Amino acid sequence: MSTGQPLRPLNVGIVGLGYWGPNLLRVLGESESTELTWICDRDQERLDTIGRRAPSARRTTDFADLLADDELDAICIATPVFTHAPLARQALRAGKHVFVEKPLADSTADADELIGLAHAEGLVLMCGHTFLYSPPVQYVREQIRSGALGDIYFVTASRVNLGLHQRDVSVIWDLAPHDFSILLSWFDERPTSVRASGRDSIVKGVHDVAFIQLEFPSGLVANVEVSWLAPSKLRRTAIVGSERMVLYEDGAREPVRVFDSGVVYQDPETFGEYHLSYRSGDIVSPRIDAYEPLAAQMHDFATFCREGHWDHPHRELGRDVVALLEAADRSLNTGGDAVAVPPSPVLRTH
Amino acid sequence: MSTGQPLRPLNVGIVGLGYWGPNLLRVLGESESTELTWICDRDQERLDTIGRRAPSARRTTDFADLLADDELDAICIATPVFTHAPLARQALRAGKHVFVEKPLADSTADADELIGLAHAEGLVLMCGHTFLYSPPVQYVREQIRSGALGDIYFVTASRVNLGLHQRDVSVIWDLAPHDFSILLSWFDERPTSVRASGRDSIVKGVHDVAFIQLEFPSGLVANVEVSWLAPSKLRRTAIVGSERMVLYEDGAREPVRVFDSGVVYQDPETFGEYHLSYRSGDIVSPRIDAYEPLAAQMHDFATFCREGHWDHPHRELGRDVVALLEAADRSLNTGGDAVAVPPSPVLRTH
Amino acid sequence: MSTGQPLRPLNVGIVGLGYWGPNLLRVLGESESTELTWICDRDQERLDTIGRRAPSARRTTDFADLLADDELDAICIATPVFTHAPLARQALRAGKHVFVEKPLADSTADADELIGLAHAEGLVLMCGHTFLYSPPVQYVREQIRSGALGDIYFVTASRVNLGLHQRDVSVIWDLAPHDFSILLSWFDERPTSVRASGRDSIVKGVHDVAFIQLEFPSGLVANVEVSWLAPSKLRRTAIVGSERMVLYEDGAREPVRVFDSGVVYQDPETFGEYHLSYRSGDIVSPRIDAYEPLAAQMHDFATFCREGHWDHPHRELGRDVVALLEAADRSLNTGGDAVAVPPSPVLRTH
Amino acid sequence: MSTGQPLRPLNVGIVGLGYWGPNLLRVLGESESTELTWICDRDQERLDTIGRRAPSARRTTDFADLLADDELDAICIATPVFTHAPLARQALRAGKHVFVEKPLADSTADADELIGLAHAEGLVLMCGHTFLYSPPVQYVREQIRSGALGDIYFVTASRVNLGLHQRDVSVIWDLAPHDFSILLSWFDERPTSVRASGRDSIVKGVHDVAFIQLEFPSGLVANVEVSWLAPSKLRRTAIVGSERMVLYEDGAREPVRVFDSGVVYQDPETFGEYHLSYRSGDIVSPRIDAYEPLAAQMHDFATFCREGHWDHPHRELGRDVVALLEAADRSLNTGGDAVAVPPSPVLRTH
Repeated sequence: MSTGQPLRPLNVGIVGLGYWGPNLLRVLGESESTELTWICDRDQERLDTIGRRAPSARRTTDFADLLADDELDAICIATPVFTHAPLARQALRAGKHVFVEKPLADSTADADELIGLAHAEGLVLMCGHTFLYSPPVQYVREQIRSGALGDIYFVTASRVNLGLHQRDVSVIWDLAPHDFSILLSWFDERPTSVRASGRDSIVKGVHDVAFIQLEFPSGLVANVEVSWLAPSKLRRTAIVGSERMVLYEDGAREPVRVFDSGVVYQDPETFGEYHLSYRSGDIVSPRIDAYEPLAAQMHDFATFCREGHWDHPHRELGRDVVALLEAADRSLNTGGDAVAVPPSPVLRTH
Repeated sequence: MSTGQPLRPLNVGIVGLGYWGPNLLRVLGESESTELTWICDRDQERLDTIGRRAPSARRTTDFADLLADDELDAICIATPVFTHAPLARQALRAGKHVFVEKPLADSTADADELIGLAHAEGLVLMCGHTFLYSPPVQYVREQIRSGALGDIYFVTASRVNLGLHQRDVSVIWDLAPHDFSILLSWFDERPTSVRASGRDSIVKGVHDVAFIQLEFPSGLVANVEVSWLAPSKLRRTAIVGSERMVLYEDGAREPVRVFDSGVVYQDPETFGEYHLSYRSGDIVSPRIDAYEPLAAQMHDFATFCREGHWDHPHRELGRDVVALLEAADRSLNTGGDAVAVPPSPVLRTH
Repeated sequence: MSTGQPLRPLNVGIVGLGYWGPNLLRVLGESESTELTWICDRDQERLDTIGRRAPSARRTTDFADLLADDELDAICIATPVFTHAPLARQALRAGKHVFVEKPLADSTADADELIGLAHAEGLVLMCGHTFLYSPPVQYVREQIRSGALGDIYFVTASRVNLGLHQRDVSVIWDLAPHDFSILLSWFDERPTSVRASGRDSIVKGVHDVAFIQLEFPSGLVANVEVSWLAPSKLRRTAIVGSERMVLYEDGAREPVRVFDSGVVYQDPETFGEYHLSYRSGDIVSPRIDAYEPLAAQMHDFATFCREGHWDHPHRELGRDVVALLEAADRSLNTGGDAVAVPPSPVLRTH
Repeated sequence: MSTGQPLRPLNVGIVGLGYWGPNLLRVLGESESTELTWICDRDQERLDTIGRRAPSARRTTDFADLLADDELDAICIATPVFTHAPLARQALRAGKHVFVEKPLADSTADADELIGLAHAEGLVLMCGHTFLYSPPVQYVREQIRSGALGDIYFVTASRVNLGLHQRDVSVIWDLAPHDFSILLSWFDERPTSVRASGRDSIVKGVHDVAFIQLEFPSGLVANVEVSWLAPSKLRRTAIVGSERMVLYEDGAREPVRVFDSGVVYQDPETFGEYHLSYRSGDIVSPRIDAYEPLAAQMHDFATFCREGHWDHPHRELGRDVVALLEAADRSLNTGGDAVAVPPSPVLRTH
């Protein structure tokens, strides 16, 4: 609900200055649409060290200080996963817009409650699925949605490296949010069932490698491999369509490659028995825009808040990612049985 | 049972001159330990065309001619999969040693019967799992078995390309025999259960992409992706061990790369809570021997036949591959449920 | 001078069965337009071994047998470089069409004499610059000649590997014929001066690495690095034009890559001082035909012979390559001074 | 001349906040051994914008302010090349230690004068050849100097990209300082003669591509290709030794690869005629340390200044790079004639 008047910058606070918080701090500090007024961390020393990079922000170890500040419009939460829901709940109840690092919560129930709360209060609730703002992901999205790739048969992705084991959650909660959020943004449908198997190689009970399969209503299937144990880093997603195929490799010099290849299938009715021929054409590495995804995302967040756009599309995507993570983790713990994904309370596309 | 006497070359016939038969013809023709005396194909024109490359071999469209020749020691079968068992059965009953293209048969029951028959007759029965003779596969086998990689946590493999759809069988029967035979040769154990899912993208009922997971008794897991639909060819297997990791890429300029990387895990008892550190060291591309795997394999086959070594190790590997293929295909058709692999009649390692 | 009548196959003999001869043997044997009637080598054992692959060809250690056979139409010479001119001279005088492995001769004087002789006798004289028939080389040629790349500023090429030192000649005579022939075929002009420096690292007096620069009348420059000493094989040529740039890597999975990149230059007159902007666009790996260059070349040779087309274009290219090799070698021996390339007796383009 | 006393941080000023200055600002600001007290730029707006990152530094558009501050110990010069010598001269005369961005000056005469001045005043003069502090460059240096590579036959390097044309100087002055400084640091000798050719493709009179050859007294040769016009970025240096070969690719995931390959040469006296055999062994990508070269270099600079170590080794390397640039540029302008490199006033190794 943009008015003609110039908007004042959004007053924002950050809670959590560990791995990702400093990136938020930098981006919020550089943006003209936000004013970073609070930073909060339970570790006083970290607060002081990181705080030097944002001299005009007030520092506190007490989250309540942010809740109590009437001038504060929004809070960005970059704390451990299990604290996302409690902190977001408090912030929403205090009337603050909320940005939560991915995943939105550690259970679908919590995610649903947060969305309901934001809805009721007319507040923006956004989850940090920053890959949705990555230029190659957006380029592939356009290719898929424009029909240039034809019908999509399947997607297969590997996201592996010699990684940082998390203490309490499987590799699925750490790495699969990226792939799940990307898949949800690319397609107009949500998976209905998930399978996952893998191994807890290093720490018993904490899976460090997982092989996940997702089934979609249209017949589309997706395969996602995530691992903290790998000889070399791999960020590779292949999208196989009836007209073209795409290879997306995050961080590569040529992150997207479009293959004008496919199979031509002649119907058995015409030919007596079916006949296939293969088409192998040019490969194009399109020029992809270069900008920082996090800056673009925070700009959107600020705009949504300033314009009161609480019903923005990405909110429920965050909830659906949690539903998929939960289902995948459940399958992992049963050794690979199919687990149904609970339908979203509201029908929508991302 | 080698004697001191010089052995005469093995008289060999080939049945089937389609895709793979001409390779057998070339290798058997160049070897000093074999004499190619018969070639057989139902297509007279192909028989004549290909036959020019082996001028001294007799040609026939009738398989019975080979069975009836008392001078013929062995028969190589390179016909469609569903004919492997019937032809091999006839050949063994006629007292011929038999080499069968992979897979050995299209059912475990048939494979077991063939092995029993060969055993009873004291004849060599060998299956064309030529990758077992590939220098990189053998190098990795040594690394695994010497303990240089430590405990193996998991293996993950992709074997995909824009491929040749088969008419009647899924991509599993076409491509997975390679990976299954390699896995069986690397490890001293057989999978106990298999899951597979995928999609029949082009021809309904014929899966052209499959994602397979194998579980081994020791806890080892293997993930195998096979596909006839892929933007670019991939032959990539990662072996993740506690001491080192290996990347094996068939056909690459550096087919094996050994990563001196890993995770160091300190036990919670010592540290209160567990502590992990990562080790990332040198990467070595070892010099790998270069020779033709098929020539090495046919040399072994000839030696086994001439020395009466009917109890050679690879015979039952061929049967176990069929058991895995059958289980994977069954899982594929149930949508991914775990299927138990029937135990081998005789306990053994490959 | 094609007539309407069906032509009988060309009777061809090969002299020299060392490194390259067996490839000629295979291709001439498989072609329908040639009949391989003679093979000749001074080494009787090699003659017998290789001869088995061409059972219908007569074998001799005496080149005179080929010259004396009135039924023989053409002779392919695949002997050491210093014998090219003497053997070709005898063959032409005996009225045979001649195909000579590259380089055509070891001196420009000899090359000129051979061309004059062929001209006088109305015989075909062709040199084995097989890269001219390579699909990627032809694709790049079309791109250059169609103007799609704009004005070509420069070409820079590396052709290095851990190679086979030749006994008597520098690496220039071994590897540079490829690059020189390719450059001559791509452009409508010949270099006027050549510089080369390098080192005789292993055998004194025999350079095993050379850095060569060629200057063309239009201002075009070419840089060519050739070496028998290199950590890894490289076959890389960059063509930099005002509109597009091309990377050609022989043997790569994507042998040609077209970069829609360039510099936009605004004239100082317009802008006060010059202004540059950079354009970096899509990269395309075009689908390139796949066929065997040697087979295409021998087909052309046979056609030229059978149609009496002695004035085919490639003949003088072979002579010009020798002139460039001679000039480069002379520069190498003077430590890098510019050496003028003698103009061709006849003005022509390739 | 380190004393036992704790040293106070070095007071440093920066002049020039264009392309490279902000990097110096960041590194000097983060270091504990330096105190950034002045920043200077002629552009007031840039001074204010960049200045926000160093709130405690005083800002000025007048270089004289730095010269007049008795508390200022050292000045870092990051201005255009033609101003290096004049500014450094003033700074040294004012008693300041000096760090100059590469190249040290735009003429050997100026470079020699600066060194003499620094020597006379007992001041540190250091040139910003930051690649000398790059971990891969240092790793290769150790390999060369330890003898692990054997005798070095030659080095061949490409440093090309679609680059930023400079207004007044050729690509040699822009890119070759990197390669020249690296070569001087790797070897215990200086080139005696230089050749360079190339082309001024875009702006007449300003070469944007150059092919340079350097000759060393020992027989070592180096080939360096630099270009602002290239289809894709390349930073590739091959070092060919008698025992091993090394590929160094700056910025690659595996920046150094050591090839255990070579040629074994048997002397003609022993064998009648020489005999060569090739050895092709393992390839090792050693683990390379990861730290920021510029931080390491500024740490050294501060240490040299604080300890009065005016006779540090890198000073004269900066001068020798200028001598090579000048010789290469002169050769370029004569079309490739060899130009002798003037000997250094003092004999030394780097």
